Amino acid sequence: MTQLLDVDGMTRWIRTEGVERILLRMVGCLEEDFRRWEQFERIPRIASHSPGGVIELMPTTDGHDYSFKYVNGHPGNPARGLQTVTAFGVLADVGTGYPVFVSEMTLLTALRTAATSALAARVLARPDAEVLALIGAGSQAEFQALAFRAVLGIEELRVLDLDPAAVTKLRANLAPLGFRIHVARSVDDVVDGADVVTTCTADKSRARVLCSEQVAPGVHLNAIGGDCPGKTELDPRILERARVVVEHTAQTRIEGELQQMPPDFPVTELWQVLTGAAPGRTREDEVTLFDSVGFAIADFSALRCARDATLGTDLVHPIGLVAEPEDPKDLFSLVHAPVPVR
Amino acid sequence: MTQLLDVDGMTRWIRTEGVERILLRMVGCLEEDFRRWEQFERIPRIASHSPGGVIELMPTTDGHDYSFKYVNGHPGNPARGLQTVTAFGVLADVGTGYPVFVSEMTLLTALRTAATSALAARVLARPDAEVLALIGAGSQAEFQALAFRAVLGIEELRVLDLDPAAVTKLRANLAPLGFRIHVARSVDDVVDGADVVTTCTADKSRARVLCSEQVAPGVHLNAIGGDCPGKTELDPRILERARVVVEHTAQTRIEGELQQMPPDFPVTELWQVLTGAAPGRTREDEVTLFDSVGFAIADFSALRCARDATLGTDLVHPIGLVAEPEDPKDLFSLVHAPVPVR
Repeated sequence: MTQLLDVDGMTRWIRTEGVERILLRMVGCLEEDFRRWEQFERIPRIASHSPGGVIELMPTTDGHDYSFKYVNGHPGNPARGLQTVTAFGVLADVGTGYPVFVSEMTLLTALRTAATSALAARVLARPDAEVLALIGAGSQAEFQALAFRAVLGIEELRVLDLDPAAVTKLRANLAPLGFRIHVARSVDDVVDGADVVTTCTADKSRARVLCSEQVAPGVHLNAIGGDCPGKTELDPRILERARVVVEHTAQTRIEGELQQMPPDFPVTELWQVLTGAAPGRTREDEVTLFDSVGFAIADFSALRCARDATLGTDLVHPIGLVAEPEDPKDLFSLVHAPVPVR
Repeated sequence: MTQLLDVDGMTRWIRTEGVERILLRMVGCLEEDFRRWEQFERIPRIASHSPGGVIELMPTTDGHDYSFKYVNGHPGNPARGLQTVTAFGVLADVGTGYPVFVSEMTLLTALRTAATSALAARVLARPDAEVLALIGAGSQAEFQALAFRAVLGIEELRVLDLDPAAVTKLRANLAPLGFRIHVARSVDDVVDGADVVTTCTADKSRARVLCSEQVAPGVHLNAIGGDCPGKTELDPRILERARVVVEHTAQTRIEGELQQMPPDFPVTELWQVLTGAAPGRTREDEVTLFDSVGFAIADFSALRCARDATLGTDLVHPIGLVAEPEDPKDLFSLVHAPVPVR
């Protein structure tokens, strides 16, 4: 039977193992899968846009397992007490086509996005990076901070958000965990002295949360908020200066900061850097940009990571998603009510 | 919370309400949605092919509800005691992006495929049709028979399958329900005197289960087995003779019997016939063909039909698919373990 890792199971897994330990585990799964990138079927996500947001399906397969994620993005949700982004996902057996594992992925996506950011920063940021600026203090922010601490040892944060309550929340969550946190009053303030800048804002429009003059030489930019057509965060002049690394070029040209650049603008894919086929950071003063939109292969990694850690434990439970008649050609037997006596 | 209609709930619903009554209910939903066809986003399904079969995602939306179906097709499955086709699906709220209703769809797809066939036959078969030939006696066969009885009043069946056990099963299931059943020994035998011929075989190849000489004038063909690239059931000369009706032209040209014809081969879409924009059967002796591959809008109809019939009853139960932190920007609060005393 299909096994379900629901919100309760996911929460217990993360609380028990610990966010940072799971982030490191996930960085390991991501790196393994990015290194075998060419074994995966790379299917662009299927997006359905509406005035309030977007609903997407993100499938991929390595020929053995098949995965897809359902994910929405609705910037107006928090005002109604709802999440901007929620998600769930499925792993299936390619050999039989049967769904094997269903998981909540709101939390899992938060983990995989942060783990992917940190994995990219490991090869793109300066090795002596000590200060992380967070522009946007929403749901993703704490996971970013913990991933950068787990992978790069960063404990100093500078934070900026238009919503003061979000900043207060972030400080309340992270200060007790040992982070030093500076609450910034402006973009100039938040980037001052930062070695890595994560932009993670949710506006569904062409925003410029950062202009080129605000990006110092040697900075690594981790842009994760610009992730659908018409939604960007960066001044295009930053891209002209930067070494740009992406997950999957075809998708990022449509959805990422790249949509502001000509179609032949040169980029490197992260898997190429991880396998050594392309260099990571080449100079101390280079500006690097990970233009991250989230790709299905990272969700595949996150799902198998969660499956491997939870299958066989009481964190999961079976759900009746697949009809199983005794004779596979006799589906009708399942619904055939007893014949009334005539 | 998201509500789940699992196999147990689906089975109880169908047994309680009765297959034929649900088929009629579903024909109603399908007709409503096909009549407002142009309100739907028509996205071709996303297929992932492997040597053993195919896994597909089939999304659509009417701007209010969003639906997708996960479905596989693995012809080798029955030999391992597994279903050729299994499926599940989801309805979500376009306004918030939240998944609202998850349903098993192996049974539901069997119902919607049969209901769609009968709906198309209602406008394409001769009104005096009395005999249905079934080529292929697999999981879909009984549902076809019941749908044609519910909608067209047909009670006389002629059945052919390479697998004698499948035919025995079909007879055991349907004879007690009042059908008169002739077990045919050949294609010529099965089509002899048939007014409607349903082809529903599972081979993943270019098959010719029916050649043009075997199709009498006035017959309505309901071809549902040819439903992915490289998989067809009919002699192309049949298509040359027939009035061909499809669900969604762009998809059928890739996946249906139509893939054997030139790209400009003329077809009519079923919604056009149902709205009166195009005629149904025009002559007594016309050969009509519903080249059915299954389209996402029919799954949308089936899902909303099941949702409307089961929400608020004990047939469904809540599952924890969406994380719900008190503060929507504080997802981290869900996994934040208590800080140890220092």
